[in-house]
Amino acid sequence: MSLLDMELRVISAGAAMFADTLAAQGVPVERVEWLPPAEGDADLAAVLAQTWRSEIDTANQVALQRVLEARQVLVDVRPAGEVVPGMTRDMVLHAGPPIAWERLSDPVRAAAIGAMLHEGLAPDEATAERLGSRGDVRLEPCHHHQAVGPMAGMTTWSMPVLVVENRASGTRAYSNLNEGLGRVLRYGGLGPDVLERLDWIRRVLGPAMGSALRALPDGIDLRGLIAQALHMGDECHNRNRAASALLIKALAPRIAALDSVSSAERQGILEFAAGNEHFFLNVGMAACKAAMDAAHGVPFSSLVTTMARNGTDFGIRVSGLGNQWFTGPSQVPRGLYFAGQNADDANPDMGDSAITETAGLGGFAMAAAPAIVQFVGGVPQDAVMYSQRMYEITIGESSAYTLPILNFRGTPTGVDMRMVLQTGILPQINTGIASRRAGVGQIGAGLVNPPRECFTSALRAFAALLVP
Amino acid sequence: MSLLDMELRVISAGAAMFADTLAAQGVPVERVEWLPPAEGDADLAAVLAQTWRSEIDTANQVALQRVLEARQVLVDVRPAGEVVPGMTRDMVLHAGPPIAWERLSDPVRAAAIGAMLHEGLAPDEATAERLGSRGDVRLEPCHHHQAVGPMAGMTTWSMPVLVVENRASGTRAYSNLNEGLGRVLRYGGLGPDVLERLDWIRRVLGPAMGSALRALPDGIDLRGLIAQALHMGDECHNRNRAASALLIKALAPRIAALDSVSSAERQGILEFAAGNEHFFLNVGMAACKAAMDAAHGVPFSSLVTTMARNGTDFGIRVSGLGNQWFTGPSQVPRGLYFAGQNADDANPDMGDSAITETAGLGGFAMAAAPAIVQFVGGVPQDAVMYSQRMYEITIGESSAYTLPILNFRGTPTGVDMRMVLQTGILPQINTGIASRRAGVGQIGAGLVNPPRECFTSALRAFAALLVP
Repeated sequence: MSLLDMELRVISAGAAMFADTLAAQGVPVERVEWLPPAEGDADLAAVLAQTWRSEIDTANQVALQRVLEARQVLVDVRPAGEVVPGMTRDMVLHAGPPIAWERLSDPVRAAAIGAMLHEGLAPDEATAERLGSRGDVRLEPCHHHQAVGPMAGMTTWSMPVLVVENRASGTRAYSNLNEGLGRVLRYGGLGPDVLERLDWIRRVLGPAMGSALRALPDGIDLRGLIAQALHMGDECHNRNRAASALLIKALAPRIAALDSVSSAERQGILEFAAGNEHFFLNVGMAACKAAMDAAHGVPFSSLVTTMARNGTDFGIRVSGLGNQWFTGPSQVPRGLYFAGQNADDANPDMGDSAITETAGLGGFAMAAAPAIVQFVGGVPQDAVMYSQRMYEITIGESSAYTLPILNFRGTPTGVDMRMVLQTGILPQINTGIASRRAGVGQIGAGLVNPPRECFTSALRAFAALLVP
Repeated sequence: MSLLDMELRVISAGAAMFADTLAAQGVPVERVEWLPPAEGDADLAAVLAQTWRSEIDTANQVALQRVLEARQVLVDVRPAGEVVPGMTRDMVLHAGPPIAWERLSDPVRAAAIGAMLHEGLAPDEATAERLGSRGDVRLEPCHHHQAVGPMAGMTTWSMPVLVVENRASGTRAYSNLNEGLGRVLRYGGLGPDVLERLDWIRRVLGPAMGSALRALPDGIDLRGLIAQALHMGDECHNRNRAASALLIKALAPRIAALDSVSSAERQGILEFAAGNEHFFLNVGMAACKAAMDAAHGVPFSSLVTTMARNGTDFGIRVSGLGNQWFTGPSQVPRGLYFAGQNADDANPDMGDSAITETAGLGGFAMAAAPAIVQFVGGVPQDAVMYSQRMYEITIGESSAYTLPILNFRGTPTGVDMRMVLQTGILPQINTGIASRRAGVGQIGAGLVNPPRECFTSALRAFAALLVP
């Protein structure tokens, strides 16, 4: 087939480009194709060898099917306290694996303080800091409450959250609303402007979106929306222009029809949405969470169901390993910085947004989004290559989400931790970059990987469960 | 440069694919790369040889700059009679070059009759037919009135038209509003549903869009919007999903704020817009018309400033040749047909929408829109190839509109009729396909070229103006 010939040629050319580009930027080039399994660690290789068993492959197929069959629908926006399981008034949910107050990085601590001020848990920053350090507020991962939040991920009782239903599994997932760009809580921004915006989101935007969504007889079909967005240059992590516009298109008729808010408020709501190219991000994250939760908890499955960062640690969870986290130090992304900023100003990676990669979007779907390189660095062929590489560590291809430039091949879906260690290829995540200083906000965007030790410690725990 | 190497390899592979694909579909493959100038016609080649002169190159650069510098802004929607120059109450504007009533194809005649009924120029179809054949209504090209219309292009006195201002040239262009898909006037659809929709557009949609646009302090920047849409998988002729969503995003806040219409009407307006993936088409066409009119009338310029079809004839106009049309028979597109339809059911190509290709979009920008092949046929690499070929007959590259997958190269812009005849490569147009039967509507979409004789007769007229 001439078509296949051509694909192979493009792959080969792209692969050279990829290595060349990294080398030209001074990035150490890993020529991973020639790595021995487990990077030559004989002990780990022996553990890994034990795991290539048919019952694991079968379990992985069960888990994968649940990801591929997900039918996510955005049905409502409600205050977190009304809908998020296990939520309490004294709780602050954050992104990533569990972490103690004293280990929080500065921007995440600033965001936690801002969340407490917003919620009325503390009257001022000093009190909030004291409450946090004494453990008087409950700091828990979003992921422990069927929720996800980008960057710092702070979510409190009265904050409006998106309600996404997975109609295949019957489960729900939640996420807070995106605040837009500039100085915002999720990037560790603090100040009266940040709190005023959060208050407007709680008073006006959240209730209006809830009313609009409840008026739609079938909610908004997110599986269909994301599929369309991938044909419109998004990868739905750091490029959400199309998905955001499609979401606005779906909501606008019902927002315009609301008689419960003034005409100025209707205009303000739609201007706020239209002014934020990441308006969809949190929606897409909740959709991915709803798919991955359905795949979690399959005995003997080595499928990775969570990848998340809290700004200090990177953590993964594996379907067959219950709710245990496997962590390592969060890395500083490499990428493009805003004027006057550089890698020395960057906080280590943060946020639950890597749930998009976990579900086969984001860095895994970058071939859909060649224009994203203007934001995260590199050339368009790199974007194609990142997707190509992810087929080497995933066990399936999406039936819903396809990549036009790869002849509509399904996105690489379902990371098998065994394949990560076998090939030495780490999941490719693209991400926003926060300043390491509290109160500043976003300073760039780029690419990052999980630390390898997440996978090695998960593998050892997994092998320990197997009867030899 | 390794990047250049890779591009060349992709081109070569794509070129083979392109020919293979056509051959596989039974289309005669023109291996145009090896054609002698003027296809071996010695007399025409001699005429062509005369035209390679520096004053023509200079004139073309003047015309090209006017295209590249266009700054189009959507500022208003008004009844055609209020704004379109030379419009009269007894006038029916149509797409393409001038044509007598008796030469109209059936769907275009049906659309003209529907336009007369809509405007109240005739009480019934039989009367409309009689008025048309007697010349009692004035049938004139949109292009003679700074206007463009897709497919049949019918525009009458009371129809609302988009007002696009080119702030670089100070000129304006106009287009009617898109009716959506299914049975619609522009595809020769006739019936009470068609007329009811046109009436709603005149009573509700047009005035609301006008109010919303006048409330925007700077209108809507179409140059910026189209540039974004090209990074979102549109080529802005047959794929307008992104551009339509961006247009809705820009309009929705002001539509939502309108107190002059009921909440049900606000909802209805935005649902109508959201339900039509070609909502932007007519806006983009007016933007292209506003750019090309600025480039028209440059003495000694061989730049093609109009390509348009009336369903019978294909006509072009050339910058240095005034308002004279050069025509040939309109072709039947090759492409994908809806279920139960085939090429025997197709009308020859129609519409002013080839103004998009004339301005460097549509078929010329298909590399931006790999997913369009699901609509017009072929594989994604074909889409890349169509853009690549158009660089061979254009004199410039857009500074505003870029193609991510070609490393952000500017779209091929400004067809030089000399280069068309020199290379034997005809402009590549993608297009909707209308049924040849009146009243049916769209039956598919595909690809088409102008007939070569448009260019040969234009060249002879051009050469006659030159001092030997």
